[in-house]
Amino acid sequence: ARTGIPEVVFAEHKPLDMLLDIINSHIEEAKPLLVTRLSPKQIKALEDLPMNIDTHARTASYLAKAPANAPKLAIVSAGTSDAPIAREAYVCARFFGLDALLIQDVGVAGLWRLEKHLPTLQEMPLVIAVAGMEGALFSVLGGLLHAPIIAVPTSVGYGVSQGGNAALSSALASCAPGVLTVNIDNGFGASAAAAKILLHAKSRED
Amino acid sequence: ARTGIPEVVFAEHKPLDMLLDIINSHIEEAKPLLVTRLSPKQIKALEDLPMNIDTHARTASYLAKAPANAPKLAIVSAGTSDAPIAREAYVCARFFGLDALLIQDVGVAGLWRLEKHLPTLQEMPLVIAVAGMEGALFSVLGGLLHAPIIAVPTSVGYGVSQGGNAALSSALASCAPGVLTVNIDNGFGASAAAAKILLHAKSRED
Amino acid sequence: ARTGIPEVVFAEHKPLDMLLDIINSHIEEAKPLLVTRLSPKQIKALEDLPMNIDTHARTASYLAKAPANAPKLAIVSAGTSDAPIAREAYVCARFFGLDALLIQDVGVAGLWRLEKHLPTLQEMPLVIAVAGMEGALFSVLGGLLHAPIIAVPTSVGYGVSQGGNAALSSALASCAPGVLTVNIDNGFGASAAAAKILLHAKSRED
Amino acid sequence: ARTGIPEVVFAEHKPLDMLLDIINSHIEEAKPLLVTRLSPKQIKALEDLPMNIDTHARTASYLAKAPANAPKLAIVSAGTSDAPIAREAYVCARFFGLDALLIQDVGVAGLWRLEKHLPTLQEMPLVIAVAGMEGALFSVLGGLLHAPIIAVPTSVGYGVSQGGNAALSSALASCAPGVLTVNIDNGFGASAAAAKILLHAKSRED
Amino acid sequence: ARTGIPEVVFAEHKPLDMLLDIINSHIEEAKPLLVTRLSPKQIKALEDLPMNIDTHARTASYLAKAPANAPKLAIVSAGTSDAPIAREAYVCARFFGLDALLIQDVGVAGLWRLEKHLPTLQEMPLVIAVAGMEGALFSVLGGLLHAPIIAVPTSVGYGVSQGGNAALSSALASCAPGVLTVNIDNGFGASAAAAKILLHAKSRED
Amino acid sequence: ARTGIPEVVFAEHKPLDMLLDIINSHIEEAKPLLVTRLSPKQIKALEDLPMNIDTHARTASYLAKAPANAPKLAIVSAGTSDAPIAREAYVCARFFGLDALLIQDVGVAGLWRLEKHLPTLQEMPLVIAVAGMEGALFSVLGGLLHAPIIAVPTSVGYGVSQGGNAALSSALASCAPGVLTVNIDNGFGASAAAAKILLHAKSRED
Amino acid sequence: ARTGIPEVVFAEHKPLDMLLDIINSHIEEAKPLLVTRLSPKQIKALEDLPMNIDTHARTASYLAKAPANAPKLAIVSAGTSDAPIAREAYVCARFFGLDALLIQDVGVAGLWRLEKHLPTLQEMPLVIAVAGMEGALFSVLGGLLHAPIIAVPTSVGYGVSQGGNAALSSALASCAPGVLTVNIDNGFGASAAAAKILLHAKSRED
Amino acid sequence: ARTGIPEVVFAEHKPLDMLLDIINSHIEEAKPLLVTRLSPKQIKALEDLPMNIDTHARTASYLAKAPANAPKLAIVSAGTSDAPIAREAYVCARFFGLDALLIQDVGVAGLWRLEKHLPTLQEMPLVIAVAGMEGALFSVLGGLLHAPIIAVPTSVGYGVSQGGNAALSSALASCAPGVLTVNIDNGFGASAAAAKILLHAKSRED
Ligand SMILES: Nc1ncnc2c1ncn2[C@@H]1O[C@H](COP(=O)(O)O)[C@@H](O)[C@H]1O
Ligand SMILES: Nc1ncnc2c1ncn2[C@@H]1O[C@H](COP(=O)(O)O)[C@@H](O)[C@H]1O
Ligand SMILES: Nc1ncnc2c1ncn2[C@@H]1O[C@H](COP(=O)(O)O)[C@@H](O)[C@H]1O
Ligand SMILES: Nc1ncnc2c1ncn2[C@@H]1O[C@H](COP(=O)(O)O)[C@@H](O)[C@H]1O
Ligand SMILES: [Mg+2]
Ligand SMILES: [Mg+2]
Ligand SMILES: [Mg+2]
Ligand SMILES: [Mg+2]
Ligand SMILES: [Mg+2]
Ligand SMILES: [Mg+2]
Ligand SMILES: [Mg+2]
Ligand SMILES: [Mg+2]
Repeated sequence: ARTGIPEVVFAEHKPLDMLLDIINSHIEEAKPLLVTRLSPKQIKALEDLPMNIDTHARTASYLAKAPANAPKLAIVSAGTSDAPIAREAYVCARFFGLDALLIQDVGVAGLWRLEKHLPTLQEMPLVIAVAGMEGALFSVLGGLLHAPIIAVPTSVGYGVSQGGNAALSSALASCAPGVLTVNIDNGFGASAAAAKILLHAKSRED
Repeated sequence: ARTGIPEVVFAEHKPLDMLLDIINSHIEEAKPLLVTRLSPKQIKALEDLPMNIDTHARTASYLAKAPANAPKLAIVSAGTSDAPIAREAYVCARFFGLDALLIQDVGVAGLWRLEKHLPTLQEMPLVIAVAGMEGALFSVLGGLLHAPIIAVPTSVGYGVSQGGNAALSSALASCAPGVLTVNIDNGFGASAAAAKILLHAKSRED
Repeated sequence: ARTGIPEVVFAEHKPLDMLLDIINSHIEEAKPLLVTRLSPKQIKALEDLPMNIDTHARTASYLAKAPANAPKLAIVSAGTSDAPIAREAYVCARFFGLDALLIQDVGVAGLWRLEKHLPTLQEMPLVIAVAGMEGALFSVLGGLLHAPIIAVPTSVGYGVSQGGNAALSSALASCAPGVLTVNIDNGFGASAAAAKILLHAKSRED
Repeated sequence: ARTGIPEVVFAEHKPLDMLLDIINSHIEEAKPLLVTRLSPKQIKALEDLPMNIDTHARTASYLAKAPANAPKLAIVSAGTSDAPIAREAYVCARFFGLDALLIQDVGVAGLWRLEKHLPTLQEMPLVIAVAGMEGALFSVLGGLLHAPIIAVPTSVGYGVSQGGNAALSSALASCAPGVLTVNIDNGFGASAAAAKILLHAKSRED
Repeated sequence: ARTGIPEVVFAEHKPLDMLLDIINSHIEEAKPLLVTRLSPKQIKALEDLPMNIDTHARTASYLAKAPANAPKLAIVSAGTSDAPIAREAYVCARFFGLDALLIQDVGVAGLWRLEKHLPTLQEMPLVIAVAGMEGALFSVLGGLLHAPIIAVPTSVGYGVSQGGNAALSSALASCAPGVLTVNIDNGFGASAAAAKILLHAKSRED
Repeated sequence: ARTGIPEVVFAEHKPLDMLLDIINSHIEEAKPLLVTRLSPKQIKALEDLPMNIDTHARTASYLAKAPANAPKLAIVSAGTSDAPIAREAYVCARFFGLDALLIQDVGVAGLWRLEKHLPTLQEMPLVIAVAGMEGALFSVLGGLLHAPIIAVPTSVGYGVSQGGNAALSSALASCAPGVLTVNIDNGFGASAAAAKILLHAKSRED
Repeated sequence: ARTGIPEVVFAEHKPLDMLLDIINSHIEEAKPLLVTRLSPKQIKALEDLPMNIDTHARTASYLAKAPANAPKLAIVSAGTSDAPIAREAYVCARFFGLDALLIQDVGVAGLWRLEKHLPTLQEMPLVIAVAGMEGALFSVLGGLLHAPIIAVPTSVGYGVSQGGNAALSSALASCAPGVLTVNIDNGFGASAAAAKILLHAKSRED
Repeated sequence: ARTGIPEVVFAEHKPLDMLLDIINSHIEEAKPLLVTRLSPKQIKALEDLPMNIDTHARTASYLAKAPANAPKLAIVSAGTSDAPIAREAYVCARFFGLDALLIQDVGVAGLWRLEKHLPTLQEMPLVIAVAGMEGALFSVLGGLLHAPIIAVPTSVGYGVSQGGNAALSSALASCAPGVLTVNIDNGFGASAAAAKILLHAKSRED
């Protein structure tokens, strides 16, 4: 919280009782809370709590901030298998108070599917791009848009792209200026940085 | 230029005649130009041209934009050997129209040297951090500041940190939210992204 | 035993009957014994034996040495997920005859949580630091304390920190003097070295 | 020669006398010969021989086959630094009897520069793409063209793209169907395969 | 489809309902469809649909194009464990309209088993070679045949060949001219490129 | 200095004027100073200064602390090529106030050469072991001695041991308890940690 | 068989029916057969056949050659977890007609346990050494014995030794002359080479 | 010497005076000596000594043992650039007392060049194979010959084969039984092991 980002709990590796303790203390004090990386088993244990669960994004949120008049942000994903990470970024962004828009399945193998979204994307102050495989989407967007791009490489893929390193290298080595990168599969991190950029950075400039 | 960033020429691998052609055509048309990654031999060949040469940063610029009333930006570097990359970021940032401030030699081995700069850093909309070795500076800044951090890992170091991969991994795996990364030694890329954030992103938000 | 460290049994890969044979022969002869890396299934099989089981640390001990007047040692861990390895180090240290103190969840993302423990840590002859992700904790402690640090990188993390290599590189490349490293997840090894330092090294010096 | 490809000599690691022996025996027998990967020193030693030297491509050829009515082939390169490898592919292709066309400097950072060549490229039976950095060009071409693409990753780049592995992974993991890959910097190999496809494969089909 | 290759669905990571939607819409419109990388569970769910299921290749196809008078193509595999990938290539090739021939279990450990197939292979316009372990088959075929070779390294193997990297490197570093490579286990990609070569490339040449 | 270790200057990457400034300010104030990793060119520039230069260790020291009644420490090296790093450790240890003993050329290929030193080594509170190649010396010493071992892997070697990673892995994976590791070629780091152990740790224990 | 080694079937990846077919055809023709890498499920399916099953080694043999007057060979393993691979080597060696002797659990952490076996080992024409972790055993044996050593690195270990690469590098980089290596966990390969050396090589020399 | 192999001096990293000391003491005592990995500069310094210098193999020998009635051994190399390592193996083998035969330039790209040597090779008790690039020669020989093969991968190659790892993996993962491996470029090691096999192993068997 001291860094301006509301504390988000990372559920992986957390025993269930510890997780429930954290959640209940937030509900008692009516403090907003977001939990990410929930396993199916953990999700089942939260079903009866007053939380907003997104099975696909593997998140549960409580008292998410309403994004009225919030800064805009587009989250673009390349393929079907990138969807869970793109959704994690989306849920986090809204929780942090951003007016996020989710555009899915516009990967480079079918560049023409991206085209119709370009006018919308050109209006955005910031774009989060989520892609696995060879991650060509990062450079294509970076070469077409004025907005800075936050690249989220995903661990989707097999052979040389298994684990996400091929996509990560593509993001880092991108010859398009303005592409920034977070860790593989780190949808949360992309939106946390986006919030710092669109909320904090702005306030300092004025 | 179409992406809002003035074209910067990357001098590495460019034969001298090609380089001089590009520079002269800009001078003739009085168009601003920045050249990066100049070798000592290339720098010597540019000495008599009306350019602003920074030997340390390995850059030469022509008609750099004056940063009056420009957005602020701090560039923080960890050690003596990170200085050339930090300076490259600094020269690029000023060329892109940002009011950059350079704070050097405040690495983690002597945390107390960083302390006195914290009040200044807390006022910044964005911080570029340049560090090699184990890159602990990225997480320390990310854990202390509200501003988003653009991490530039450097190739400085030996053994496991040779080539910059240890510092790169530290930036990507940072447990502090709001740390974004560019390629190893890519001072240009950090400032290009900073310019897109502080100039473009801002204009879209208003 | 010939190297001054009581033989500790590594349970991984050991068939159950072999494990029980070893344990029973120690009980019969009333010789101290520590077993580490027990699987849940192995732990269940030891439940009725006169052993001290720590499910979290995955250890079982018999006749652990009482640490009266023993040298002090602090074990510091960064996050919730580093806890099992930190506990393994703790159980081993006490078994080896050290007066170990366990301080948990003081990672770099929240540097202020570490601050209040600094006076205690400054009094310690030796500190074991347990951290995954980017392992910035090692350099931060090494830059603040007079004590030598034994770093235990953990395999906790995803993307570039998966498997623990990012944290390991941070420990090895640390620019803070006095940071020594053991293998990823090797809580036992850190405490074995600590015992050699605090018990053997001391006796030779006098 | 038994595999349908005229023997091309790889000059790297070859002592000068051995190289001259090979060349002279071909000239005496008036047999066509291509030498690749010549060092500046080797090139100097060949200056007075009746060979066609291309300093940029680092090749020397003798009696290159005239490409009258030969199958067409486009060789596309991304950036200035990819030029030597693109030229190696070009010289080899013509030596093997293909009507090669060289299109340079159309990388992804400036997608609009590629656009004007698309009609020409759509008419080609085969395209060789030469790119370093993050190699996004391979997927972009693969997603736009009907022709199969032979990707030649280059060792151009720094940080994560140093040595060419990032571009190689992009080629192999490309989500666009029809992208085939050769070793990093292997312009010769791409054209040898192109010749086998356009000359041999065709003859078998008829 | 825009690139001349009928859209093939990659089933991995796809939820069952999404998969069934895609399939049903093709059946309704009587449009040909091929699904690859089906899990056993997904295969069970497709059993009652009017599709051609190949459990071994993990594929299901609908309205596969009849290969009358189609270009020929040989698919050669090295060992028993390479069979599923070889079959994936085979099913894809036939779906794309090629007259594919499957020759299995002719790996290098028993070179004499390959010998009897050489006359057939010498007649082929193109050969797909599927091999794991050390992938010596690629170079052996490349050194014996006039046809271009598309190498498909497989993830079969243990120790240094685990995951397929040893075979992949062998394909890329092959000293035999005319060997082209696709990603590890990418039987589909090899046949997609083969189709582009034998169908598209040919039509452009005429 | 705040961590109890006198500041040692790392000369690599430092311009000569910066280096001379640092040295002269120490001489003026008569403050002890150690410079490591000097290049031959830098060494030449220091020749006329009142410093103690060790060409082999690549160090220059000023006012090194006299080691009267200092704690003992053995530094053991495996082969001729490990000598420079072993000497760097030796010079640093003496500068930090330790009574260091240097035993060279006792690698594992000739175990019998190590034997005659065992009685001396058994008396030591701490042993630094310096080895490249496969680094078997670390485990052999760890399995024979009661003292903790600080392993310094060296970058000496070719093929799989090039750069020092094979020796580093051997140190980290050592099955002998009490082996601690520093970065490849980091003789300074080993002695800095030894000083913290033998000087600081001891003082805290009493 | 053409290479002098009786065909051994590798059971991994083989469907059960294929495996039974191979076995039954050998039993019908009374031809010797060895099957390796059997899964527990496969072993169960072979229980009623007239085969010699070794659950620990994961092998089943039929009509193993009697080793009367056979050449000797020692197989030495380092730790408990290396036992399955050591046994695989042992079963294979006996099947190939060698008089193999198995010496287990003599790793480097307890060098004194190795000592008592040295007289026996000095009499051997060849020694197979099986070790995981850091693989120091290979160099220790190579430095003590006149016999050539075939090193079998095992995948046993965690952290940097996970998967066996640390032990593999130790074998390859060993500074003791006469150490030869096979793939990680390849007990079969070590004994196949031993058989070629002790049976074939010998016959050629006479 | 204690392991049955005469001590061979590795010249790399050795200062000239140390090298001359070693050589002169051997000449004085008339003891045989072999020096490997000599640099051109070191070779020049030895020119006037009574030694047998092989510039190509980078060796100098004194009193090499005469190989009358010695065991035979073939050394086979793949390409021109593998020659120096093949010669190093050859000189070492003769120094160790083996009747070595050198067959060069028979790589897999031209399998037919290997064919004519097969009858000779089938008579050999042992074959050393030297190859870089993708190292297919190891498997091809292993699949054709009864003799055990010692593979020497070379660091020759570029892209994925740079440094020799592709050839090393091919040797280790070879599906042909009887292939043993030494470190990259280690011609000495291959011949040392060959000597232990053909001289020691044999004597123990009788
Ligand atoms: N999906 C996620 N990926 C990475 N970090 C996260 C994620 N969700 C939460 N976090 C971070 O993890 C921290 C909480 O860690 P913990 O104390 O282990 O719950 C939060 O402050 C966030 O910075
Ligand atoms: N130091 C640098 N590092 C990385 N990219 C750079 C650098 N300087 C310039 N560039 C980029 O390189 C492009 C120019 O490449 P080129 O056409 O080869 O000169 C510019 O548009 C920038 O995007
Ligand atoms: N630039 C190149 N890259 C890779 N292989 C090449 C190149 N030029 C020639 N070759 C191959 O190298 C073989 C000749 O190798 P060498 O016998 O060493 O001259 C030729 O038959 C070609 O297959
Ligand atoms: N455990 C093993 N590890 C490696 N290779 C083996 C093993 N067992 C058998 N083989 C080899 O695998 C070949 C048989 O492969 P396959 O035809 O798939 O059964 C045999 O000829 C042996 O060379
Ligand atoms: Mg993608
Ligand atoms: Mg740093
Ligand atoms: Mg941590
Ligand atoms: Mg490119
Ligand atoms: Mg194979
Ligand atoms: Mg060594
Ligand atoms: Mg071991
Ligand atoms: Mg080769």
